[in-house]
Amino acid sequence: MISVEQHLDRILSTVKVIRPFEQGVLDAQGCVLAEDVTARGSLPGFTNSAMDGYAVHAADVASAAPDSPVVLPVVTDIAAGNTRPLSLAPGQTMRIMTGAPMPRGADAVVPVEATDGGIARVSITARSVVGQHVREEGEDVEAGRVVLRRGTLLGPGQIALLAAAGVARLRVVPRPRVVVLSTGDELVEVGRTPGFGQIVDSNSVMLSAAVTAVGATPYVVGGVPDDARVLMDTLEGQLVRADAVITTGGVSMGAFDTVKEVLSRVGTMQFDKVAMRPGMPQGFGVLGDEAVPVFTLPGNPVSALVSFHVFVAPALRQLAGRPEPAWPPGYLTAVATETFRSVPGKMEFLRVILDEDRARLAGGQGSHMLAALAAADALAVIPPEVTEVRPGEQVECLPLLGREAP
Amino acid sequence: MISVEQHLDRILSTVKVIRPFEQGVLDAQGCVLAEDVTARGSLPGFTNSAMDGYAVHAADVASAAPDSPVVLPVVTDIAAGNTRPLSLAPGQTMRIMTGAPMPRGADAVVPVEATDGGIARVSITARSVVGQHVREEGEDVEAGRVVLRRGTLLGPGQIALLAAAGVARLRVVPRPRVVVLSTGDELVEVGRTPGFGQIVDSNSVMLSAAVTAVGATPYVVGGVPDDARVLMDTLEGQLVRADAVITTGGVSMGAFDTVKEVLSRVGTMQFDKVAMRPGMPQGFGVLGDEAVPVFTLPGNPVSALVSFHVFVAPALRQLAGRPEPAWPPGYLTAVATETFRSVPGKMEFLRVILDEDRARLAGGQGSHMLAALAAADALAVIPPEVTEVRPGEQVECLPLLGREAP
Repeated sequence: MISVEQHLDRILSTVKVIRPFEQGVLDAQGCVLAEDVTARGSLPGFTNSAMDGYAVHAADVASAAPDSPVVLPVVTDIAAGNTRPLSLAPGQTMRIMTGAPMPRGADAVVPVEATDGGIARVSITARSVVGQHVREEGEDVEAGRVVLRRGTLLGPGQIALLAAAGVARLRVVPRPRVVVLSTGDELVEVGRTPGFGQIVDSNSVMLSAAVTAVGATPYVVGGVPDDARVLMDTLEGQLVRADAVITTGGVSMGAFDTVKEVLSRVGTMQFDKVAMRPGMPQGFGVLGDEAVPVFTLPGNPVSALVSFHVFVAPALRQLAGRPEPAWPPGYLTAVATETFRSVPGKMEFLRVILDEDRARLAGGQGSHMLAALAAADALAVIPPEVTEVRPGEQVECLPLLGREAP
Repeated sequence: MISVEQHLDRILSTVKVIRPFEQGVLDAQGCVLAEDVTARGSLPGFTNSAMDGYAVHAADVASAAPDSPVVLPVVTDIAAGNTRPLSLAPGQTMRIMTGAPMPRGADAVVPVEATDGGIARVSITARSVVGQHVREEGEDVEAGRVVLRRGTLLGPGQIALLAAAGVARLRVVPRPRVVVLSTGDELVEVGRTPGFGQIVDSNSVMLSAAVTAVGATPYVVGGVPDDARVLMDTLEGQLVRADAVITTGGVSMGAFDTVKEVLSRVGTMQFDKVAMRPGMPQGFGVLGDEAVPVFTLPGNPVSALVSFHVFVAPALRQLAGRPEPAWPPGYLTAVATETFRSVPGKMEFLRVILDEDRARLAGGQGSHMLAALAAADALAVIPPEVTEVRPGEQVECLPLLGREAP
């Protein structure tokens, strides 16, 4: 029996970041940069107005005040999108819109609110200083500078910066492609009615959803029979498109545990009992020329989803090049509102409902019990040496993926 | 000038949940149930073994112990997927795998670990009680019972429960389809080099990414010119496929603010100054026969993304039928590590970097400054009546979407 930490360590010391790929900036959302990126152009690309108002020589309006307005002729309008370079002579003004290029010579913008809004001539009632309401070329980003570093996760703000700085394509770590393979003669596909002794293959849709929730791309290969040859052929056929493979079922102590039987002989696969509940039988290793990580999860649905959260999700994040999040923390602390019991010597993952910072059991805790799993917000993690958490005591909780949408 | 709360209230009291739609269970991930769903079958669907071991009459092994084993003949094996109903006579046993149907008559399972693992006959070294390691038909879910309620957000565990209970299709609130429309003669599309006076249309890719990050589906209509007729025609053409429209630009005080000019005349559109920085000029209303909500955001990228977080994201969640999350809270509390300054009378949204529970400014706070936006983890929210947050004081922060992947 190995500990949860030992199994996770083995996984994370094996899994490598996926080879980077060039993508369009929008398609790179949620991916991690695989290179430092430099700005092609400056931001702003030209000195422009920060306000709707009037471009002036600041010296011309130095004495302007509500009771002593300065009146200047308005020689033209400058709209955003004006591509003609203009020059402003002293003693004149131009009406200018937010984002429009400043005319040469002008060194300040008087906001429209500090004027009478005149079109041919304008009465200005507030003084201005050099640089006021002016955005200088390059004050945000200088061309040629690194704007984002390798390792940055790309969200809306990062994508905006890259696009604005003229970067349309860039090298990122692609989204992991994950083959989800469920095994068992007893499985019927979703939508068919199971006969006596059969069950719906709910693991494949559950894990597909979990893979999606962690930002990776699932490929479901459902209902592989308990046949060594078929399983091996299926696996080999899938390895070419997979950055990782997840199987469920066929790994416990039974006489017909095909996954364990077949995979024990190949690659670096290793099958262990992990000191956890649920999810004790775990297998992990790499297969094929590309050393694709393979996770063999137990077939009980609760065991499979717990194993996904504890072992697979961190590995998929590592494949995607993401740093483990310092913030928000993976775990959060809640206060138990009832007694949580746990077996000694195993890390226990209880399905709990969170109500603000209070946690209560979600219902039946059997590893086949889907109703409680579906009602739960999080897994309360009880360390191996703890056998009881009393009401009012704190407990670490691992939020379930997809339970709260963004 | 209206408050942030007033503008948000007007939006949220207008926006309705999108009409439900029937979808396959896997495609419904991230969606909210629009109906109570009842189980078609029981879970488990048949009484089965919770362990790999031996099905017995518990009475036969009542005296079993390590020093006085009970030896029973093994009459057959029962694998998971066995669809033949079997009967077990007293004094006999059947080897049974996890999930395999219990034979009639048997009332307990002895785990393989408490036996010698025999195949023709087995030596059992631990007593058993009725029901031990047996999962009763329907103990998790009874057929016909409501398994998930209307309003439930569907993640991996919920999808597994529905699939297992025989529900393949169900009515959910669809993902909102959001048209992102950027306006301005100065815009060039991403990947093209802007000339003098032009800028890359980074807002459309930024908001498209933000829409995706909130679980909705974006349709980008980029670079609409500042022409009233073109804008109106474009909008009308897009309304048919939109559950919401977001525009950026053209809503401030300028003489060429086409969006404001065109939309002021139609639907229930209303343009307000909102007491916030950045993001003061805001427009909202509904357009067309379907009363599609339209958000006109300011054109400065930081203003646009702040406005998205504060006004559009809550509205899209409401369109999608999601309850505002009680947990995790939208806001988190951090401690300022430097002085944050804010104008009086406006709610200020400062771009900050979080380091555990400490917040510091991300850099230049101008509403055009993308570098600081791209470096930030969150928006520190400074209420209108506060003009200064001192080091060590607490500040509420709104995490930026997509800044931390799941």
